[in-house]
Amino acid sequence: MASAPLLTLLQSTIEAAATVAFALSGLLAAARKRLDAVGVCLVTGLAAFGGGTLRDVLLDRRPFFWVAHAEWLWGLLALCVGAMFFLRAQHFALTERAMQWPDALGLGLFSASGTQLALAQDLPGIVAVLMGVITATFGGVLRDIVCNEIPTALRDHSPYAICAFAGGWALVAAQAGGMPQDWSMVLAVAVATGLRVAALLSRYSLPRWTSGSDSA
Amino acid sequence: MASAPLLTLLQSTIEAAATVAFALSGLLAAARKRLDAVGVCLVTGLAAFGGGTLRDVLLDRRPFFWVAHAEWLWGLLALCVGAMFFLRAQHFALTERAMQWPDALGLGLFSASGTQLALAQDLPGIVAVLMGVITATFGGVLRDIVCNEIPTALRDHSPYAICAFAGGWALVAAQAGGMPQDWSMVLAVAVATGLRVAALLSRYSLPRWTSGSDSA
Amino acid sequence: MASAPLLTLLQSTIEAAATVAFALSGLLAAARKRLDAVGVCLVTGLAAFGGGTLRDVLLDRRPFFWVAHAEWLWGLLALCVGAMFFLRAQHFALTERAMQWPDALGLGLFSASGTQLALAQDLPGIVAVLMGVITATFGGVLRDIVCNEIPTALRDHSPYAICAFAGGWALVAAQAGGMPQDWSMVLAVAVATGLRVAALLSRYSLPRWTSGSDSA
Repeated sequence: MASAPLLTLLQSTIEAAATVAFALSGLLAAARKRLDAVGVCLVTGLAAFGGGTLRDVLLDRRPFFWVAHAEWLWGLLALCVGAMFFLRAQHFALTERAMQWPDALGLGLFSASGTQLALAQDLPGIVAVLMGVITATFGGVLRDIVCNEIPTALRDHSPYAICAFAGGWALVAAQAGGMPQDWSMVLAVAVATGLRVAALLSRYSLPRWTSGSDSA
Repeated sequence: MASAPLLTLLQSTIEAAATVAFALSGLLAAARKRLDAVGVCLVTGLAAFGGGTLRDVLLDRRPFFWVAHAEWLWGLLALCVGAMFFLRAQHFALTERAMQWPDALGLGLFSASGTQLALAQDLPGIVAVLMGVITATFGGVLRDIVCNEIPTALRDHSPYAICAFAGGWALVAAQAGGMPQDWSMVLAVAVATGLRVAALLSRYSLPRWTSGSDSA
Repeated sequence: MASAPLLTLLQSTIEAAATVAFALSGLLAAARKRLDAVGVCLVTGLAAFGGGTLRDVLLDRRPFFWVAHAEWLWGLLALCVGAMFFLRAQHFALTERAMQWPDALGLGLFSASGTQLALAQDLPGIVAVLMGVITATFGGVLRDIVCNEIPTALRDHSPYAICAFAGGWALVAAQAGGMPQDWSMVLAVAVATGLRVAALLSRYSLPRWTSGSDSA
């Protein structure tokens, strides 16, 4: 599928920035839990590649991204080593805030690409959208499980997976309506990332589920 | 393999009731942990389909149940949304007690069907039985891991996985002895579900493992 | 690939001893958490076979070790039942110390064999080494996740995964340099196990990652 070269370059750049944002979320989580060097590398890698790898296991796709692009493993290793030398606790909050924006782009891009890969296997729309959501969110879910926390994505009431869900449906609807693949991808990324950015700027919070409160 | 139509209808009904029981166990666990809407849906889906999906990943079978029957994903979504509007904390204990019976049927049915699928791949008896146990219990195990608890199935001393284990062996023995597949399935479900119901009614508890107590 | 019979026998013996050491680490963890009989068996099995099984899922290899050698499942079951009758809390510390040595051998052997399996699929060196590390360490990681702990391998600052990493690279380098497979395996085991034994004897600890300390 020939894309315009500019679009391809743009996509590669966004992908790289988003993967680094996902990786840094793992790095910060590992540092907060005071894991050792092995833990830092593993949680960083899991946050960066866990979602796409789980999707590929479920869809029975090989090779994984980090097998086909093994240079990324070297990049993550360098990132972790560099962080251990240069990252200080007072940088954590700043890093986290700065990462919100590439993270929102990654949310859009990975949910669109995960949904697209599942549609290419002729899976039903809701399964395809679910694969997009898994791609975008399960790196963080696995990161938090390994760090012995209830995953943030499941409890913080900030719309995240829901933005990926909306972006996935935008892709399914656009392709069902006959929009070319490139443009439907752009639309899906715009929907998911746009919703996420709007949620961050407005500090919107999902409605509370009050019934659980007396019974914990 | 042609089954009597009545048996097929009965099996479909039990399967649906049991899947809803598994799903509700996830929904209640998520509500108790005060997860948000995303967490409720994810933990509900994991409790309902996690065991069968893990079995299929291990046996390298595709498509998963929830891919072949994507309407179930819509059903779960509707269940979660409905529960968020109508379920109150004072209903939790009642729901949990009411769910014990379809859950016991699901334990029998899923351990029998998981064992049968593995036998159809000519796997050794103990591996087939283990696949049945995984089908019946790992939805709950994954639910508890995501909720950051030690899985109930591994620590509550109430026979659960052991009933699935016994049912699986009943199936293996019956088929080795030449019983037709339909009847050996019925026997396996009867053994596993019967043991579970007996355990619930008698409040039987597995013997304690006292040696661990001084050293935690 | 014909190995010398003595080497084959030696490898089988080490493998069996190491698998028992891995299994016992699971058994002790389960006993410390006071899990019931089901939990003890499951955590023991996960510690023994989890790493190799995850590697095989990632590499899309079948059958798993415990499917091809189902007699091992019986062996683990016997080990668990025996331990419940005979193991007492005062034996825990002694068992753990005695297990350090077969565990160090297993670390070497499983990292070498995992790396070798990935190299046989023509995967890049760093991916192959990562598969070796996963084989050697993820049984313990999964054991700790199920027991609701942050995995020891990620936080105890004792070199473990790093020894597997070094052993894997020794294998990759030796084969790239033309050393025959048998001898490069021996070298890799010697490097990984040797480093682990040296770390245990010297009580060497990985450097601290101080930046995380103020912000937990």
